[in-house]
Amino acid sequence: MSDFCVAGVDLGGTKIYTVLASSRGEVLAERKIPTEAEKGLQHVIARILESVEQVKRDAPPSFRLRALALGAPGPLDSSRGIIHFAPNLNWHNVPIRAILEEKTGFRVLLDNDANLAALGEHLYGAGRGADNMVFITISTGVGGGLILDGKLYRGSAGGAGEIGHMTVLPGGPRCSCGNRGCLEALSSGTAIARAAGKLVAGGGGQEILAAAGGDPGKISAAVVAAAAAQGDPGAVSIIAGAARYLGIGVANLVNLLNPSHVVLGGGVMAAGELIWEGVRREVRARSLAAARLGLRLVPAELGGRAGAMGAVALALQAVNPQE
Amino acid sequence: MSDFCVAGVDLGGTKIYTVLASSRGEVLAERKIPTEAEKGLQHVIARILESVEQVKRDAPPSFRLRALALGAPGPLDSSRGIIHFAPNLNWHNVPIRAILEEKTGFRVLLDNDANLAALGEHLYGAGRGADNMVFITISTGVGGGLILDGKLYRGSAGGAGEIGHMTVLPGGPRCSCGNRGCLEALSSGTAIARAAGKLVAGGGGQEILAAAGGDPGKISAAVVAAAAAQGDPGAVSIIAGAARYLGIGVANLVNLLNPSHVVLGGGVMAAGELIWEGVRREVRARSLAAARLGLRLVPAELGGRAGAMGAVALALQAVNPQE
Repeated sequence: MSDFCVAGVDLGGTKIYTVLASSRGEVLAERKIPTEAEKGLQHVIARILESVEQVKRDAPPSFRLRALALGAPGPLDSSRGIIHFAPNLNWHNVPIRAILEEKTGFRVLLDNDANLAALGEHLYGAGRGADNMVFITISTGVGGGLILDGKLYRGSAGGAGEIGHMTVLPGGPRCSCGNRGCLEALSSGTAIARAAGKLVAGGGGQEILAAAGGDPGKISAAVVAAAAAQGDPGAVSIIAGAARYLGIGVANLVNLLNPSHVVLGGGVMAAGELIWEGVRREVRARSLAAARLGLRLVPAELGGRAGAMGAVALALQAVNPQE
Repeated sequence: MSDFCVAGVDLGGTKIYTVLASSRGEVLAERKIPTEAEKGLQHVIARILESVEQVKRDAPPSFRLRALALGAPGPLDSSRGIIHFAPNLNWHNVPIRAILEEKTGFRVLLDNDANLAALGEHLYGAGRGADNMVFITISTGVGGGLILDGKLYRGSAGGAGEIGHMTVLPGGPRCSCGNRGCLEALSSGTAIARAAGKLVAGGGGQEILAAAGGDPGKISAAVVAAAAAQGDPGAVSIIAGAARYLGIGVANLVNLLNPSHVVLGGGVMAAGELIWEGVRREVRARSLAAARLGLRLVPAELGGRAGAMGAVALALQAVNPQE
């Protein structure tokens, strides 16, 4: 009897990451291809199918594909399989599950990409064995997901886990959501780059500008982190500020949820000890001893594969509901 | 065959509230007596037993008492039945479950008073039917509890639900926990009274002082609320400030947990529309539409009985584990 396999697809605005995994979650093949979102809905659907064909070709032929799970940027309705709005793809109310089921003939599942990244880290990454885990990814934006009492927590209408929109500074900078002082507006890569751009525009941050090759348009969080690593005080202060608000957000989550693990990932965490130490300091200062008892604050392990691995987990749960 | 009953006891620093309830949770009798904490541990234990005897005498004799659940201020270890520290009682590491089991001969359970109040509101109060519910009580302090996926959520070490220690203004006033800008330091009755006291000490707030009978020592949150109801601008501003930070805290919880119900109780909420409208405004401004979908923001229904009713629920769950 041949074994079966599932496909996990992480659909992003710029790339599609697809993993084919066995019934036991072993990775058989994986591929990352450009989304080419600008070519429109039908093209992106063809790209998804193409990526699945690619991993099937790369994997041993004895595995029969039984299900596909797709992680996509929200807001979406996972129970009905509809992506309500995906700004990076310019999609509105796309019944992606029905479309993919019709085109492939196998079972398709849909969930929020941040939820699936949390599930991936919980089952295959830094949160293995956690009973209660908070996952936060800090890159262009700030996203996250919650594993509570061993399961992905979605909330009453699938809208839980919007960690990036926690207010951490009431009168703070404007966020893309319209609110002021969201974690995302203070600690994301975008926020770090914007703060550095302001510093440079004001005549400061010469080390940052040098790290950007003299081009203010090339200032990114990675550039600021590089300047901070060289000891540039302006860059250090910007990274430390982002770390402070991230630490406040983590401390709040610890006080509310008393998790065993907080897993932090995304490009901004690559800034290293400066950001990690800032987070740890705020957690120590701002969480109650009883709420942080036994807490492990750890780096994500799966990097850009977390979403696709979480999609694998979702597909396996659907095929093996007893697990 | 006679029916059985359970006792739910809410042990506070100033009063002991005890409810006797049938196997179906119907209240058979209830009593509130002073704790007399200043007379020491043995006296308070005798008071608890006395309150249970009183409700037994008040109830029909056909009900046999099977279990007692106690809600107490934390930090405590509910699985081992030990109160680690109760400042209002001056108790340190009291194995209260073993003591009460030895003295009564029936099963005793222990939990955090705020968790039990959340459970009480969920089963018998404003949160009936909620799948995901946040309970917050705003009185002298700010406490709370979480009902997630239909069950009381305790976290990994029993420390979850510390809503009052969420940072909502990073550089804000000092909290009793040592941190700055906790919700409790900004929105509790104590915080409201302190802000009013400062206003009066600075020569302002004459309406507040008048509502306190001219005695600055008698300024309380209720006094400030009364002055605000008369339209006093200083009092209105203080209540609106407390409402703003409470609203930020609620918005954060909505973004994280996408609850179906947020239940707000405690003396401060009695300030009425001024505080409720402030909370609603921040929730609208600061939570994502997807996270507040279907949200009901409602007043607690059980008042001072919530903790004892939650203790009843806990005792019934222990006696009828299938429910």
